[in-house]
Amino acid sequence: MMNIAMLGTGFIGRFYTDALLGNRSRDKVVSVYSRTSEKGKKFADDYGVDFYTTSMEEAVNRADVEVVCISLPNHLHEEAVMLCVKHKKAVICTKPLGRNSEEAYRMMQAVEKAGIFNGYLEDLVYTPKFIKSWEAVRNGAIGRVLWAKSRETHPGPHSDWFWDKEMAGGGAILDLGCHCIEIARTFIGKDILPVEVMCWADTQVKPIDAEDHAIGLVKYENGAIGQFEVSWTFRGGLDLRDEVMGEEGTIWSNGFMRTGLEIFTSGKSGAYVAEKAESDSGWLFPVGDELNELGYYHMFKDMFDAMENEDQPRETFYDGYIVNAVMDAAYKSVKSKKWEPVELKEWRGLTGLSKDSHLTDYDDDYYLIKEEKTHYGDRKVIIKHKETGKIEERVV
Amino acid sequence: MMNIAMLGTGFIGRFYTDALLGNRSRDKVVSVYSRTSEKGKKFADDYGVDFYTTSMEEAVNRADVEVVCISLPNHLHEEAVMLCVKHKKAVICTKPLGRNSEEAYRMMQAVEKAGIFNGYLEDLVYTPKFIKSWEAVRNGAIGRVLWAKSRETHPGPHSDWFWDKEMAGGGAILDLGCHCIEIARTFIGKDILPVEVMCWADTQVKPIDAEDHAIGLVKYENGAIGQFEVSWTFRGGLDLRDEVMGEEGTIWSNGFMRTGLEIFTSGKSGAYVAEKAESDSGWLFPVGDELNELGYYHMFKDMFDAMENEDQPRETFYDGYIVNAVMDAAYKSVKSKKWEPVELKEWRGLTGLSKDSHLTDYDDDYYLIKEEKTHYGDRKVIIKHKETGKIEERVV
Amino acid sequence: MMNIAMLGTGFIGRFYTDALLGNRSRDKVVSVYSRTSEKGKKFADDYGVDFYTTSMEEAVNRADVEVVCISLPNHLHEEAVMLCVKHKKAVICTKPLGRNSEEAYRMMQAVEKAGIFNGYLEDLVYTPKFIKSWEAVRNGAIGRVLWAKSRETHPGPHSDWFWDKEMAGGGAILDLGCHCIEIARTFIGKDILPVEVMCWADTQVKPIDAEDHAIGLVKYENGAIGQFEVSWTFRGGLDLRDEVMGEEGTIWSNGFMRTGLEIFTSGKSGAYVAEKAESDSGWLFPVGDELNELGYYHMFKDMFDAMENEDQPRETFYDGYIVNAVMDAAYKSVKSKKWEPVELKEWRGLTGLSKDSHLTDYDDDYYLIKEEKTHYGDRKVIIKHKETGKIEERVV
Amino acid sequence: MMNIAMLGTGFIGRFYTDALLGNRSRDKVVSVYSRTSEKGKKFADDYGVDFYTTSMEEAVNRADVEVVCISLPNHLHEEAVMLCVKHKKAVICTKPLGRNSEEAYRMMQAVEKAGIFNGYLEDLVYTPKFIKSWEAVRNGAIGRVLWAKSRETHPGPHSDWFWDKEMAGGGAILDLGCHCIEIARTFIGKDILPVEVMCWADTQVKPIDAEDHAIGLVKYENGAIGQFEVSWTFRGGLDLRDEVMGEEGTIWSNGFMRTGLEIFTSGKSGAYVAEKAESDSGWLFPVGDELNELGYYHMFKDMFDAMENEDQPRETFYDGYIVNAVMDAAYKSVKSKKWEPVELKEWRGLTGLSKDSHLTDYDDDYYLIKEEKTHYGDRKVIIKHKETGKIEERVV
Repeated sequence: MMNIAMLGTGFIGRFYTDALLGNRSRDKVVSVYSRTSEKGKKFADDYGVDFYTTSMEEAVNRADVEVVCISLPNHLHEEAVMLCVKHKKAVICTKPLGRNSEEAYRMMQAVEKAGIFNGYLEDLVYTPKFIKSWEAVRNGAIGRVLWAKSRETHPGPHSDWFWDKEMAGGGAILDLGCHCIEIARTFIGKDILPVEVMCWADTQVKPIDAEDHAIGLVKYENGAIGQFEVSWTFRGGLDLRDEVMGEEGTIWSNGFMRTGLEIFTSGKSGAYVAEKAESDSGWLFPVGDELNELGYYHMFKDMFDAMENEDQPRETFYDGYIVNAVMDAAYKSVKSKKWEPVELKEWRGLTGLSKDSHLTDYDDDYYLIKEEKTHYGDRKVIIKHKETGKIEERVV
Repeated sequence: MMNIAMLGTGFIGRFYTDALLGNRSRDKVVSVYSRTSEKGKKFADDYGVDFYTTSMEEAVNRADVEVVCISLPNHLHEEAVMLCVKHKKAVICTKPLGRNSEEAYRMMQAVEKAGIFNGYLEDLVYTPKFIKSWEAVRNGAIGRVLWAKSRETHPGPHSDWFWDKEMAGGGAILDLGCHCIEIARTFIGKDILPVEVMCWADTQVKPIDAEDHAIGLVKYENGAIGQFEVSWTFRGGLDLRDEVMGEEGTIWSNGFMRTGLEIFTSGKSGAYVAEKAESDSGWLFPVGDELNELGYYHMFKDMFDAMENEDQPRETFYDGYIVNAVMDAAYKSVKSKKWEPVELKEWRGLTGLSKDSHLTDYDDDYYLIKEEKTHYGDRKVIIKHKETGKIEERVV
Repeated sequence: MMNIAMLGTGFIGRFYTDALLGNRSRDKVVSVYSRTSEKGKKFADDYGVDFYTTSMEEAVNRADVEVVCISLPNHLHEEAVMLCVKHKKAVICTKPLGRNSEEAYRMMQAVEKAGIFNGYLEDLVYTPKFIKSWEAVRNGAIGRVLWAKSRETHPGPHSDWFWDKEMAGGGAILDLGCHCIEIARTFIGKDILPVEVMCWADTQVKPIDAEDHAIGLVKYENGAIGQFEVSWTFRGGLDLRDEVMGEEGTIWSNGFMRTGLEIFTSGKSGAYVAEKAESDSGWLFPVGDELNELGYYHMFKDMFDAMENEDQPRETFYDGYIVNAVMDAAYKSVKSKKWEPVELKEWRGLTGLSKDSHLTDYDDDYYLIKEEKTHYGDRKVIIKHKETGKIEERVV
Repeated sequence: MMNIAMLGTGFIGRFYTDALLGNRSRDKVVSVYSRTSEKGKKFADDYGVDFYTTSMEEAVNRADVEVVCISLPNHLHEEAVMLCVKHKKAVICTKPLGRNSEEAYRMMQAVEKAGIFNGYLEDLVYTPKFIKSWEAVRNGAIGRVLWAKSRETHPGPHSDWFWDKEMAGGGAILDLGCHCIEIARTFIGKDILPVEVMCWADTQVKPIDAEDHAIGLVKYENGAIGQFEVSWTFRGGLDLRDEVMGEEGTIWSNGFMRTGLEIFTSGKSGAYVAEKAESDSGWLFPVGDELNELGYYHMFKDMFDAMENEDQPRETFYDGYIVNAVMDAAYKSVKSKKWEPVELKEWRGLTGLSKDSHLTDYDDDYYLIKEEKTHYGDRKVIIKHKETGKIEERVV
């Protein structure tokens, strides 16, 4: 059983709390901080929490609080983390960890120095589909990972502060790219060094300073490529898709818009059918249980089980820091229009990897390029001579 | 918090226990009954249960047991229920309730007379997709329900007793049809009387006495039709699909085989990827979290929340009884080759409904049959004169 | 090169002509019959045809006409066919052949006696997807066919005469069931005798005398089951799906609504996107090329190639007659509420088939029921003793 | 009717010929060139062509030849085109036009100077799905196009010369990227200038010099982005997908692997089910009619109709040249690791476009950023003050 202080009562705070108290949970929210008393009271009433306050420190520094959940706008993360450090409370923080890698690094250093439990709430590496996919990858089902792409696009975030570059620290890259980067990184291997980043970003539609659309490539030391596609200008709902190419297989995962439930309604009744659907008639594609599909249950379970077992959760502030560092490089690349190195003050994974040679022998003299059954029934191979390099095909 | 006695340690007993103890659950299994001591011990070890026994009564009649979960073969349900009645323990029972409606009726009467909590574990009306679909129906999104079909087919059940007609009470109808009948009934309305049933069944493939394939129609008093398609001869995995046609809309729900996760593997690594997949290479379609997709979490939550609130769960023994009565009529129809009435000793819903007239006026003189934009750009109506009955079309 | 007389200038006449003259076709429409001069003229202008008339006989009896294509309402088929017989013109006729099997039988007898080429325009056994599926079946990819279902539902037909029971001869069964019956029959084997039919039909929504919704089962002599689901009350577009279960495999074919093209539009522009879509905003699912998806190109190619090679097309009036006989039994079953025999004056396929035994040996003493890898890693078999009939499971 | 000389008898030559002579075509292949007499003879026999030769010029320079179809490896395109120029024959050439833009420009100049008909055989902008999607775009269904992506990946090409960098001119970019670039360009607008290109490419798996995997971004003068993803290392079949984001809508098109036909086979019969499937058991996803899905019918129809009408086809050598120029920039970018300008000797479209401002007024003082219904039922707007730039949200 965990007693939780919830910092923040907006969209994500409510979502987290729905998950924390959902199912037959043994956990409890015991303290709430909101920037306005009115919202704090409403939240406390809605979820049956006894204590709420407009003082962040008061919310954190209570005897019964075992863990602090930060669900605040990006510019308030560091302040909240430092209060947890001061009062030695376990802390779990929403994504992205910082507005940039400097902020993230300071938070990471502080919690580690203080020796407090720290978890990074990257829910999308905890979705049931991701977990199943990742198991498949680790079991070797798709062989060596060559490319992992994650895409998150929707028609724009829910709260005003997201649209303010100062408060948010950036636009769609910071808001959505952080998910996609960590998803691709986990598929490729969290101990593989992200080396450099190429990113395009633009403000194509919205009247804002930050980017509303971006596409980036992250090159890893072993030659694998991570790709992110993020946008606040997408029409049609919430598009949440991952794709992975491996030497021996492929993964296609659709997390939200095409999950097997399809409802057509003429719209006559005006009934509310699907979240994020952008329309209330025609074909709609709701998910069954949003909290489950978005990974919240599995994420909090990992966090709290780890805490109870005095272990590390799968995602820590260190991971949040790495993601911020990749995003810093992405922003640089947008400006410089070239590949930019990922600058890491600290790296805890492997180094010195190269793109291995993975050639397949056909026989002593030849490499195999490809083997296939043709359209016309023949079976043929395409092979390359190991010394001359000559390529030829043979019907076998 | 609930203390549970688990009767049965086979496939479904383990599945249920995984769900009961999953997530951050506050519930606990405190007592286990198994027909063999060896399996009981293994189960108790695996799930950390202190007490196991080969005496069903001992498992039930313990001070700390608050609710008994029956996960036994069909022919043992009645005995187990009667022990709960004797010891006044709340009881939840897997599907189907009885092998026939007589058994089910006796169980229903016994628990109701004893005044004990009773829940019918029909998980498939608790899947996240079903819950969302059913909300849409109740909100009027698809208007009056005309037809609801549910299909469950797979390559055959996991345990030997299923295949034994005496122990199971029947074949694919009893094993799978019970799900499909309750799904369709819930969409159509649980207070609408099922009137008669037409069913085809055959043993097409397997060397057994019971049916391995069946298709049935259930006519409801308001003119709606429920349809079930069940088989133990299906190839390709577990096919779990519902479809609903309403006057204003449509629902298509795919619960297992096409839920948005697709993995191709060359099979080189021999890795295990997907449950129930019937192959371990090529394209596989695992679900993310089986327990969630099959409705176990939401089902137990409803059951235990109801018990804590001294309320009724959504599914009770009465529902189990209705389903058994519909299946009895189905089996009769298979033999008689005609529609057979559903015989109910007790009905707690509406009666006297007729298929209402739902005609739409075009104007004072005409009904509207259809309005459409043609292939060639015209907009036209097809109308019927209210008195003469003459049908004509007009370009408008 | 074929010179065609087109009888009928409505929806289907135009569709057929689009297909006949589409691509880089060498065929030509040289004569047109329409019931009104105005429509005939418009059609002739649109398609560049030199001759049009309101006399059916004049349209048929022209020197340059090699083949007559009947695209008329059901009640005019027989008259048109008899004119082709009279003038010895090859004839191809839209579906259903007759309003009942008597009409169909007279037409079949007349063309065969006259020795003229006759083709039955059942386009849905010529769709590219059907052809590919059917090849897979014939190659043994899914083994012995156990069950074949075809579903065609939409919000109702385009022309007034369909809704008039006298002119059409029936409702959704006659309009749509004829497709589904021939699809299932082709999968099961056109030389396998359809024995009896069970059918439910009702008028659930529309102000008409004929059925607007029906579901039927057709039992074949070898134990296979054909199923049709047809409706004029479906919402959401044109639902055209086939499913086949075989002992070694499965086919799922979606012909129209989910073919890989998905368009979301906010609807701001009011642009026309998708045929039969029932809405012009939100998610729409157009097919690429409707004529191709519906099988028209491949159907006419088979017809005309057969004629040029003095061969039979895949679908003849005999097939139309069988389909009408099955529908007659279906209509009888709707009234009698029991299985009704298919009455055939003539059968040219196999007879005396029984549901073969297809048991699989496990060893000398046992049949194999099922073999599987469990959830928990074991590999086990379920077997049945050949003499005692006892069923047991073994971990192997 | 067209009389065609076919140059090349390999995979693509046969595919083209199947399409040219398919359906009820009025066109004819009258002359065949193959590099070996044996293959030429076999081809002539298979397709009933009277004349074959190993002299390219002989094949072209025949009285009855009206149009020459080049189906040769990339390094022979220029030679073949020059023979058409010399003998004043209409010419249609497979993709890519040249191995680089220099070659392509010489070919374009030569045919234009000679005044001969020239068509560029980019089939993938002629697929039925592309045509339907593109119509939707032109009708305004998705508003201003922001991003168009095309992806073509498969396990590698069929013939040896593709794998030889010298003969092919490059790897996956040249082989597959040419398709994707023209698809995105057509969606964005063929009169919009491609300005610069960023591309990553690597040889991740195959023992070759050329790239087997590449991802590129093409920036257009109006701010739109084209994206290509190409690979010869993909596992699972032929992945052919397009996605378009517009200000008012979205297009998702799946051209090959998920088109609505799904077949499961246990593999017992060893039957051949699906082209390019990489396996012959488990779940397979064949297309119905490959020639249709890949656009061949519609492409040749456009080409030959244009020729007969003395018009231009949709795709000319000029388009081939533009595509080569974009690919040249892509290859440069791979090396320089930065955005590289597209260098065009000739541009026939618009110039001077800028990324327009497309802001939406909320009222006189504010721009609208977003309007939405929240999770909790409120309707709110996010707006930005036109002068101060301050962003706020209001519940309305």
